[in-house]
Amino acid sequence: MQLIDGKATAAAIKKEIAEEVARRVEMGLKRPHLAAVLVGHDGGSETYVRNKVLACEACGFTSSLIRFEDDVTEEELLDCVARLNRDQDVDGFIVQLPLPPHISEQRIIEAIDYRKDVDGFHPINVGRMAIGLPCFISATPKGILELMRRYGIETRGKKCVILGRSNIVGKPMAQLMMQKEFGDATTTVCHSHSAHLKKETLEADILISAIGQPGFVTADMVKPGAVVIDVGTTRVPDASRPKGFRLAGDVDFDNVAPLCSYITPVPGGVGPMTITMLMLNTLEASRRELYITYHD
Amino acid sequence: MQLIDGKATAAAIKKEIAEEVARRVEMGLKRPHLAAVLVGHDGGSETYVRNKVLACEACGFTSSLIRFEDDVTEEELLDCVARLNRDQDVDGFIVQLPLPPHISEQRIIEAIDYRKDVDGFHPINVGRMAIGLPCFISATPKGILELMRRYGIETRGKKCVILGRSNIVGKPMAQLMMQKEFGDATTTVCHSHSAHLKKETLEADILISAIGQPGFVTADMVKPGAVVIDVGTTRVPDASRPKGFRLAGDVDFDNVAPLCSYITPVPGGVGPMTITMLMLNTLEASRRELYITYHD
Repeated sequence: MQLIDGKATAAAIKKEIAEEVARRVEMGLKRPHLAAVLVGHDGGSETYVRNKVLACEACGFTSSLIRFEDDVTEEELLDCVARLNRDQDVDGFIVQLPLPPHISEQRIIEAIDYRKDVDGFHPINVGRMAIGLPCFISATPKGILELMRRYGIETRGKKCVILGRSNIVGKPMAQLMMQKEFGDATTTVCHSHSAHLKKETLEADILISAIGQPGFVTADMVKPGAVVIDVGTTRVPDASRPKGFRLAGDVDFDNVAPLCSYITPVPGGVGPMTITMLMLNTLEASRRELYITYHD
Repeated sequence: MQLIDGKATAAAIKKEIAEEVARRVEMGLKRPHLAAVLVGHDGGSETYVRNKVLACEACGFTSSLIRFEDDVTEEELLDCVARLNRDQDVDGFIVQLPLPPHISEQRIIEAIDYRKDVDGFHPINVGRMAIGLPCFISATPKGILELMRRYGIETRGKKCVILGRSNIVGKPMAQLMMQKEFGDATTTVCHSHSAHLKKETLEADILISAIGQPGFVTADMVKPGAVVIDVGTTRVPDASRPKGFRLAGDVDFDNVAPLCSYITPVPGGVGPMTITMLMLNTLEASRRELYITYHD
């Protein structure tokens, strides 16, 4: 069994990005610039946005953070999005979700210029990904592909089973795993209404779990030799930890790991890749190569 | 075994559409208007466009056909698309594919206002479908869902196996079959690189084949009691037919049909539903209910 070290991989990628940025700056090009919009003071969002700023620094990016209080109006937020769309220095930006209930997340997402939508959530990017056109691929699926690629995990013709069908992980992951240009795998999506779940998972050469139920994937559900990717990161109360919680994956790691050829731990597996892929998307945005010019 | 009669179902739906159109006209509303753009004189395209005009007449729609010769420039075609986008009377329009090689099909598709893109090929519609937002669903997958619905075929929690991953059938079909609001099925996509294909198909409660290889699906690949949907329509030379060819499905019908609970024939199964779903999309376009107003 080999542990897939997301933390080390993410660090290696950030180093590669920083090297490219240094080369670009030396050539007289500007630094990539990622902006983040944060509404309110949700603990998880604060942490995530702080980590983005740190990752920008590690990559040599310019970063900016625009803060609003919880009582910001949708109109004010749309104005901010419009400003960032126009700002020539900003290559990409994200609006940190969730937003307060009086604001339509979908409306905000659709207001973002898709050429700056480094989260890959705009319907145009979702659609372009589905039909195999160049686009920003959202961070978590992109990070999983990158981990498998760097660990030399063969996916072509393999059987991939995905647990979960969320818009940000399960669905895009399935679309990427089935496509010739990416996974090229026989791809199955299971979810809360799937009958015979264990029968499905037992056939998986590659099992990707993204349901957010700690310990859901048990040893009797995993084929010996399988690659197991655990996308779950549920906060489980734990008084012995400084923060009062620990992160738990979907997989019963201790019992499943000995069966696997490769497995991602939680934490330290898929998680660290997510922000790094956002950096990669921002670098791609600054290169202006993804979208052909007739859109301008 | 029950035969799924696509021809009769399509006729019934067209009748329903015509009744709604008659009610709308009585209320003083305008007739739905579908425009089609046809480049060149490809036999298949000519037939398809002619059938669209006939279907428009059956539904009480206004239809218009804009013809270009093969030497039309991309610029001229884009101008035509822009005109149709602006034309207040046109509710929806399609540009018949394939286009001559000197024209970028993707560029033309992306120029269409997605609110008039009744083929559902624009990346915005593809993306909206993927994340479960209201949109035009492309005709073939929509027709298959509608056939299953009208025949009372339960899909929730069932195992659906799709053969083929094209952008117009396999991929969108998979996205619809996995979504809670549509198929809600455990969904597997197989393709040319899938290992153990027969093992996959034998597990299917619902088997949808869209690969275009006559007779590919044989009796030993089908689980007794399965629902088999045959999307294949390959022209096979046949001197005994007036046109010199016959349409062949992917399924070895004579040997597979006795095993099935339901099966679609070719011709007369999925095929007749396609144009009818285009009519349904045009009716939906004329109702202006799919896309909320902030897009305007």
